[in-house]
This record gives sequence, structure tokens and C-alpha cells, in this order.
Amino acid sequence: MAEQPLTYKDAGVDIDAVTVALKSVGRMAAETHTDRVLTGLGSFGALFRADFGSMAEPVLVSSTDGVGTKLLVAHRAGRFDTVGADLVNHCINDILVMGAEPLFFLDYVAAEHFSPGMLEGIVSGFATACREQGVALIGGETAEMPDLYPPGHFDLAGFVVGVVDRPHVLTGDRVAVGDVLIGLPSTGLHTNGYSLAQRILLDREGLDLDQTLPGLEGSVADALLAVHRCYLQPLRGLLRHTGLHGLVHITGGGFTDNLPRVLPSTTDALIDRSTWTPPAIFMEMQRRGPVERDEMDRTFNMGVGMVLVVAVDAQAEVLAHLETQGEQPFVVGRVEAGEGVVRYEGQGPT
Amino acid sequence: MAEQPLTYKDAGVDIDAVTVALKSVGRMAAETHTDRVLTGLGSFGALFRADFGSMAEPVLVSSTDGVGTKLLVAHRAGRFDTVGADLVNHCINDILVMGAEPLFFLDYVAAEHFSPGMLEGIVSGFATACREQGVALIGGETAEMPDLYPPGHFDLAGFVVGVVDRPHVLTGDRVAVGDVLIGLPSTGLHTNGYSLAQRILLDREGLDLDQTLPGLEGSVADALLAVHRCYLQPLRGLLRHTGLHGLVHITGGGFTDNLPRVLPSTTDALIDRSTWTPPAIFMEMQRRGPVERDEMDRTFNMGVGMVLVVAVDAQAEVLAHLETQGEQPFVVGRVEAGEGVVRYEGQGPT
Repeated sequence: MAEQPLTYKDAGVDIDAVTVALKSVGRMAAETHTDRVLTGLGSFGALFRADFGSMAEPVLVSSTDGVGTKLLVAHRAGRFDTVGADLVNHCINDILVMGAEPLFFLDYVAAEHFSPGMLEGIVSGFATACREQGVALIGGETAEMPDLYPPGHFDLAGFVVGVVDRPHVLTGDRVAVGDVLIGLPSTGLHTNGYSLAQRILLDREGLDLDQTLPGLEGSVADALLAVHRCYLQPLRGLLRHTGLHGLVHITGGGFTDNLPRVLPSTTDALIDRSTWTPPAIFMEMQRRGPVERDEMDRTFNMGVGMVLVVAVDAQAEVLAHLETQGEQPFVVGRVEAGEGVVRYEGQGPT
Repeated sequence: MAEQPLTYKDAGVDIDAVTVALKSVGRMAAETHTDRVLTGLGSFGALFRADFGSMAEPVLVSSTDGVGTKLLVAHRAGRFDTVGADLVNHCINDILVMGAEPLFFLDYVAAEHFSPGMLEGIVSGFATACREQGVALIGGETAEMPDLYPPGHFDLAGFVVGVVDRPHVLTGDRVAVGDVLIGLPSTGLHTNGYSLAQRILLDREGLDLDQTLPGLEGSVADALLAVHRCYLQPLRGLLRHTGLHGLVHITGGGFTDNLPRVLPSTTDALIDRSTWTPPAIFMEMQRRGPVERDEMDRTFNMGVGMVLVVAVDAQAEVLAHLETQGEQPFVVGRVEAGEGVVRYEGQGPT
């Protein structure tokens, strides 16, 4: 008996099912398009008008990132509509700290298999965040790879391009002794430290994602999946302020690894742990781990997702501006003479 | 007895080991940098000078892609240094067909765990292809996610940005009845159809990756991992030629799904299967599957990785130009009146 001829669908690739999902994905993306997106001009690549006429020396700033093991929490919780926003906001923050305004975003989504609504959920997260920040979602790639990913699993990558006029690139080169460090609140872990968080809360402590914890308003899942916030809107009006010497996105490595990115080699950042109380999710992990505070500070953002390095004579004006933007900024430390590292003082709450 | 305090490393994330690999990755990337890459200006995002002064209306063209299940072949064969080049070249081809010159590339690499040399191997593929094509590798993200990927597995995503002057965007709007279709050879499957290829050759036929097949010069692994070639250099000199009406990168979906991207709705592409013999790897799969030729043509590139749609009066000049570039172009069909689909004529070899 002759074998049945094989088709691509037999090999586990159902192009048509993904095609259906991609139609609603296309509609969501189209809602983010500005008049700088040139649509209807072919379909292999995405077109964006590079009219930077008002800039003396336009510089493109780009960044790529993933969501990391926060995806495992989304997988366990079966929630797909938040991780896309995490990624958009993370990428925007990474170019914002160079002084750039974001222009457009592209996504890569790969999964073992897309269950009904899963791809639409993921892309709705991308589209919502892009729309909120005025960024065009102009392209993406979707792949079903049943033999590469374990059942139900998926991974995401995001890519953002923005622009800044060269004289206004924020490099940290003006950071100086005496500058103050102003923190802006995070919404939770953002996208870092999830391997340790799951090890403590889910594996070692055996907590369920849907149970509550002291001090947490929602469930453990709500706390762990809180969307990584975007700092574009509160900071946009400060990007060309001469008193703003540097911006630091507190991502993997916490204060300890991220602040040195803007510190001249003759300065240290001195963080005063007594100036704020980390949100309950961090305190619970620190206590339950247990995890030393130094290890917490090189793993998590501890409730501070963005740090502004500001000239002391601009401090009052910057704080006032941030408050008009609805922010609750607080001074977390200062720049002192040193050797390009972070030091800590004060007793954090325990 | 008190439990040992947990660290991030205990949770499976060994930042230091990856940091060592990232140093050689950084060196490889630096070798691709042109004078338009602004280095030493901070490290959260990558900076690229957007000086498109010679263009009337510069348009950025971007694309993202993955390698798909070709990664599974690389995984089985333990070869990591080719898939990065596949991805760079695929992305470049996707914006080239819009008429764009590539500027810079970013990569995302995620794995269960990076064995010694694995990350360096992957990134050497990116860096080699970027250097060959004059594209700057300006950023990337690397993630180890032991609970998300199965042992030894990894995934890649790539992002490219290029530029084209708006009057020279290739859209296919000039494609017309009577145009000829000129094919350029592929180096193999490029990055499409690997689920079906593995199903036939490895699972159903039980071939080993290191054995040889009739008509193949190297092993099955050599044939399946042949690098997706880049068509930038042979096509660069034709991008503004008025006789070039469209370019089509033959990717997933083969001729059947890709040619319609440039076909006006009143035209068909007529492919004459008698005009070339697909390389042995395709013939072996078609015979061994067995797979119908129609299914082959909507899955694989069948040995033709790029199609130029050319005005008939420019045909001789275009063919001559391609030959001076060392290409072996051949006419695979023509444009006829129709309804925006691909039709086939002639008997392909069996």
C-alpha cells in the first residue's frame, strides 16, 4: 500500500489556523499606525517615514528585549494579554534613558502551539501598550514550533526604534558629585528576577498563583503579572532639561548593576535604603527566601523602576514637574566621589 | 535549622558565565560597526546616525524573523555557527525586496542553557553575515531560561532596519502583463519547510544527519544547514533600474504564497516548471515523501530563492547585469492576465 502523500499540515504546521488569528492581529496593529506608517506599499517589510527635519543630527536608538521567565508565570496562570505590554514598555524605557522618543515596534512570537485566543491575547498586549505610548506596531513574526517548545510554552522578543537629536543624547557624562538620585515607583518586579521569585514563592513556599498574601491587594498572580510600566509620559517633558544628567532603567541586576551605566568612573551612587519601603511583594520574598538585602538589590528593582540623576539646583523643579505628571517621586540617594560603583547606607525595612 | 539564603544563581541564573561569553560576543559585534554607529555613548540602547541627506524622502524599512524549525536540525547536529547567518540574510532579503539598503541588525537569543561555545557560535553567525553585507550588528539580548526551553534547545529572533528613498520603494505596482520572471538560485531550503523536511528525511525515512544521499555533495546535515543566502550584492545595482518592477523573496509558502505579494489583482504569475531542475535535496524529498509537486511549490523554494519581475525590454540587460555579478539567473515564467494568483505549467522533473 502506497503511503499517503505528505503535506505541510501533516508535519504539524497548520498555516490556515494561524492565518485566521493573524487577521485580528493585523487589525490590532493597524489601530496603532500613525501617518508616518506607509501602508499598502507591499508586505515583506514595514515602512516608516524618516522625516527628522527639525533635528540637527538625528540618531536612531534601538533596543531589543524579551520578557524572560515572567512568561512562565503567564503560562502557569493562563494569562496572555499582559506580557506583550511588559515587552513594549521595557523596550521603550531602554531607549528613553538615552533621551529618545520611540517611533515603532516589531514583535516576534513563537509557541509550541497557539491555543484559541492565545496569539490574539499576546498581540493585544503589544497593541494596547503601543497605542498608549503613541508607538506604531508595524511588524511581527509568528511561529508555531511544536518540536522546539514544550506543550503550552511560548517566547516573545520585541524590538523598538526611536530617535533623538544628537546634542540631546543622555549619556551620563554630566553626572557629577552632589547630584541627587530621584526614584520613580515601579509597578512590581517589572520583567526581572522571575526565576528567583518563582523559586521562592511557588516552588519553595508552595503558594498558589490565585491565593492572596499579606499586604497584596490581589492574588500572587496579579502581583507577579503586574505590567512593567512605561516612563515615557512623565519624563518626556524633562528630556531636554539641562538639570537632568542621566536616566537609569532599573532592570536585571537592580541598582547594583544598572546605576554604574551612567556613573563616571570617579563617582559612586550612594543609595539610602531608609528612604523608602519596598512594596509588599519584595518584602515577602526577602523574608520568605530568605534573601539578603544585598542580593535583593542586585536582582530586583525593589519598587524603584527608574532613577533620574539630577543636578541639585534642579531638584525642586524636577520633583515639581514629576508631581504635575501624577508621579510620586522620592529622593533615594546621591552621587559621591568614588570609583563607579553603587554603595548602600541606611537600614531597609525588614 | 535555618534555610540557606537564596541567591539569583541558586535559581538557575548564572549571570557571570553568560557575562564571560558576552565579552567575545561584544568583540564580534564591534567588528561589524561602521562610522555611523555611535559607541561609547551609554549602553541601554544602540545609536545609529540617521544621516539620509542625499534622499528626498527617506523611509525606514524594518523586518523581523526567526529561523523556524531549521533550529531543530542545528540542535540535532550540534552546529550553532550557521543559523545566525540564516537569520541575518533572511531579514536583509525581506527589506531588499522593498528596495531598501540594510543599515543595522539586532538579535535575540534564548536558550535552556548555553553550553560552552554555543552562544559564541550563534553570534559568530550573526557577525559574519553582518560583516559580509556591511550591516552593523548593534544590539542584542541573551536569555537563559532553563524552565521554558527543553534541554539543549534555543530560539533566535532577528530585526533589521534599512532605508530607501520613497520614489524608489518597490511595491509591485508597475508589474504588468508581459513581464518576465527571472529566478536566482537558492542554496537549499533557506529557512522554510523544515518541519516537513525533517518529517520526511529524519522521522519517516530514518536517515542520519551525517549520511549522504544521491546527488548531494555533503551529508544530509550539510544540505539541510546550508546557509540562507543573501541577494543584496547581486541586486544592489538594479534597485533603481526602471525595468525592475518587483522583487519576491521566496520564503514560507513558496511561489504560491509569495509571488501574489507583488501581483496586481488583474494579473497572474505563470511558472513554467520545465525551465529548471530543482536541486537534489528537493527531488529527494518529493520522491521519498512522497509529496505532490503542488504541495512542494507551496512549501519550499524549489531552488529559486529570489524572483525578479522585469519588463520584457529590460530582460537582456538585467540578465547580463546579474551574470556580471556571478549569478546564474534563469527565466522561470511570465506575467499574464489573471486574478492575482500563481499558476503552473510544464512538467517538472520527477
